[in-house]
Amino acid sequence: MKTGRTQVKRVPKRGHYDSETVYSILDAGLICHVGFAIEEQPFVIPTAYGRLDNRLFIHGSPASRMLKSLQQGIDVCVTVTLLDGLVLARSAMHHSMNYRSVVLFGTAERVSDREEKLKALYAFTEHVVPGRWAETREPNEQELTATTVLALPIDEASAKIRTGPPVDDAADYDLPHWAGVIPLRMQLGEPIVDPKLTEGIGIPEHVKTYVDKRRKSVA
Amino acid sequence: MKTGRTQVKRVPKRGHYDSETVYSILDAGLICHVGFAIEEQPFVIPTAYGRLDNRLFIHGSPASRMLKSLQQGIDVCVTVTLLDGLVLARSAMHHSMNYRSVVLFGTAERVSDREEKLKALYAFTEHVVPGRWAETREPNEQELTATTVLALPIDEASAKIRTGPPVDDAADYDLPHWAGVIPLRMQLGEPIVDPKLTEGIGIPEHVKTYVDKRRKSVA
Repeated sequence: MKTGRTQVKRVPKRGHYDSETVYSILDAGLICHVGFAIEEQPFVIPTAYGRLDNRLFIHGSPASRMLKSLQQGIDVCVTVTLLDGLVLARSAMHHSMNYRSVVLFGTAERVSDREEKLKALYAFTEHVVPGRWAETREPNEQELTATTVLALPIDEASAKIRTGPPVDDAADYDLPHWAGVIPLRMQLGEPIVDPKLTEGIGIPEHVKTYVDKRRKSVA
Repeated sequence: MKTGRTQVKRVPKRGHYDSETVYSILDAGLICHVGFAIEEQPFVIPTAYGRLDNRLFIHGSPASRMLKSLQQGIDVCVTVTLLDGLVLARSAMHHSMNYRSVVLFGTAERVSDREEKLKALYAFTEHVVPGRWAETREPNEQELTATTVLALPIDEASAKIRTGPPVDDAADYDLPHWAGVIPLRMQLGEPIVDPKLTEGIGIPEHVKTYVDKRRKSVA
């Protein structure tokens, strides 16, 4: 998956091109940033996504400018970034962040087949909270029609990862400044029940499991 | 700051155009996603940023393709997204996320003046951890030269915010599915000391204060 477009140019040692690394970052993320250009004007739009095998899905209203543009087959860049830590060095210039990111290039295709579209919507829902699909009302025909789903092959993708302590200039290690990493993670809070929830419906197992699992994981 | 480019098209009631809202999101974020196009190929690159008044700064190596391209004056789109919650509805289709995002359009200008450059680097460092600048080694002349700093005016920006519980179709409120919000926040962990830290240097107050403050805040 290393091509002219995907090769990590700045700090090449941080680049990774294997599917396993790319997929693991995509699966740990919750939103992507979709980049496209219309008449040389770039747009970067945050949106949810799902993954099935080597395809990444985005979706939305058929009226969405982004989806209308992308299904014309224009080039698109999708980036997912996970922040893992603030890297505090002794010198201002060597401050950095620990992160995992994926940059994916390609063109999107509209998913028209009904079954394929359902699978993509399943992927979205399960991506947000695994086990959720089975405990929701599935999309009806009207909703399926009123949703545009686009697929991008995960063929031309690269991951970039920084981990570990700050790296200071040799001469700076004797300075009296504290240095280290402040870890960052996306933390889940206690679920807030919809005020309109029918009485007697408790928090389901899949939500409890998800919150517990995310809290324990490092992702 | 509402222009043809910045007007929020999808779900317009979520759009905000006042500086206060835009600045508050920019100040709460840690990274931005910078979008630009070279010969119709879009790129979306995650990077740190800083803000001073109505200018957003990004920086990096003079060899960076992104910085080299942007200082030619091409159009750029900078997006900052904060995830606040997973919105679980009764129907799969009404699943959503609570978030705060800013989309900023414009063209970048290179900051060449030495004092202005130092101020921008101050803004970066203080953006990551307030109080940090005073307890680091300031950039020397060589580092200043070896750093490109670009400024974008925060003139054409819009914020988009979703808060609150899921919104289901009227007929779905009687379904037996749980619905609600799982809050999300960027959580800071206990600082990890650089293994190469000189003995006897404790975790400084500005780091402790920052971790405590971030832990208590909702941002």
